[in-house]
Amino acid sequence: MEMTRRVPAVRIRDGSRSPREETVAREETLCLYLNGNLLVRLLCSPSDLEDLAVGFLFSEGLIGGLDDILSIEPGSAETTLFVRVRGEGPDAVALSGAVRTSGCGAGVTLSDMRQGIEPVRTDVRIGSADILSLSREFERSSQLFRETGGVHACALASGEGLLLLREDIGRHNALDKALGAAVRRKDVDLSRCVVYISGRISSEMVAKAARAGLGMILSRAAPTSAAVELAAGLGVCLVGFVRGARMNVYTHPDRVV
Amino acid sequence: MEMTRRVPAVRIRDGSRSPREETVAREETLCLYLNGNLLVRLLCSPSDLEDLAVGFLFSEGLIGGLDDILSIEPGSAETTLFVRVRGEGPDAVALSGAVRTSGCGAGVTLSDMRQGIEPVRTDVRIGSADILSLSREFERSSQLFRETGGVHACALASGEGLLLLREDIGRHNALDKALGAAVRRKDVDLSRCVVYISGRISSEMVAKAARAGLGMILSRAAPTSAAVELAAGLGVCLVGFVRGARMNVYTHPDRVV
Repeated sequence: MEMTRRVPAVRIRDGSRSPREETVAREETLCLYLNGNLLVRLLCSPSDLEDLAVGFLFSEGLIGGLDDILSIEPGSAETTLFVRVRGEGPDAVALSGAVRTSGCGAGVTLSDMRQGIEPVRTDVRIGSADILSLSREFERSSQLFRETGGVHACALASGEGLLLLREDIGRHNALDKALGAAVRRKDVDLSRCVVYISGRISSEMVAKAARAGLGMILSRAAPTSAAVELAAGLGVCLVGFVRGARMNVYTHPDRVV
Repeated sequence: MEMTRRVPAVRIRDGSRSPREETVAREETLCLYLNGNLLVRLLCSPSDLEDLAVGFLFSEGLIGGLDDILSIEPGSAETTLFVRVRGEGPDAVALSGAVRTSGCGAGVTLSDMRQGIEPVRTDVRIGSADILSLSREFERSSQLFRETGGVHACALASGEGLLLLREDIGRHNALDKALGAAVRRKDVDLSRCVVYISGRISSEMVAKAARAGLGMILSRAAPTSAAVELAAGLGVCLVGFVRGARMNVYTHPDRVV
């Protein structure tokens, strides 16, 4: 599916009006069924939906990896996916039919972010010059669409450069898509990866990354206070404001060498 | 409470490291109790929490206005509020203990956004010069903190200029705070107001505004396709990319005069 739509609009500039077509980011609803029951509806960009489904299940702790998934089948609509997993799956009462939106501040995390997360077991290190190089690669790969479409991007990288990049109208979806793509590829060791995120870092982004075993988060934007606290406690190196030739390392600065 | 925190960080610039203190947006959890039961935990900036509580209840359709609120009492923690409303309040099973986060894409709206929203009954109009003037006032009032703290801002305005402005790490919270402040003031007729939002406009932001009776949304950022569709159907005039001397009117352009 196309990631954008053309819509009619009226451009007003210095008081004069002209009709035109504008490109906007497409927003669709992924209906995700787990073992036959509607698990969640995710407002999202309609790309890489299988990555989103797998990444959502993974980052919410509903699967441990690809081996837990028996099948993924599309429904009659392009934005419906039926996933079958080993066992009974999660508590249907708790999760059934929740709408998860793309919006900041309207969220409900399905698992309590601060509980049950083990500190990350990784000593992944990266040079500051490599961070700046990754940042440039990330911006090149995503900037145009992010600016025209108003979406977020998330990339996983190793010492050798970007491994994969995913985009979505929601920051969380972008991260879930990247994690899902990594899980589906099977050859990606997340504990050796760093994650690069276009948007600001709040506590639930840190929780999601830590649950996936990621030990380093890079962003060109700002973290919140709770993100810094959580990253410090969970062993995640948090680097913000990666811009030009500079960056701020908020936690575990010994990992940036 | 302070909206920011000072945290230690290591600044790396051109490979050289220097320890420093950085200012980050504070992220706290508002625990909102309704008639004695935990309704929701909202990850938010710790300012204007009573506005947030009232605005959340209002935009979720749990109260019709200030008259439905019997009392608002703080708990022992500054970030706990006990609200008593007329009647029994909403279904405790559906809402109890949900964590609502600040993050894009991690959200759950508590009411299905596309159902049960009446088209907005307003013919509020505004001149394009007034939009640009509002935009400049909005940017002046909010830009510095948004840039340093990485937060969103939301303002309500009438023909006479900005009425009020609220800030939060979450777009939805910022809108809820502004709506709550208006409801608490009692003298604000939302059907005569326009709302100015710092971030991009997705469908649930349009739904929230329409439920509150707001007929015009202005933003310096982009809308999504679903936001445009919903605004068209609900009678909301949606204006995006308000920047410099230009803007794009996506729906009901006759309301911009």
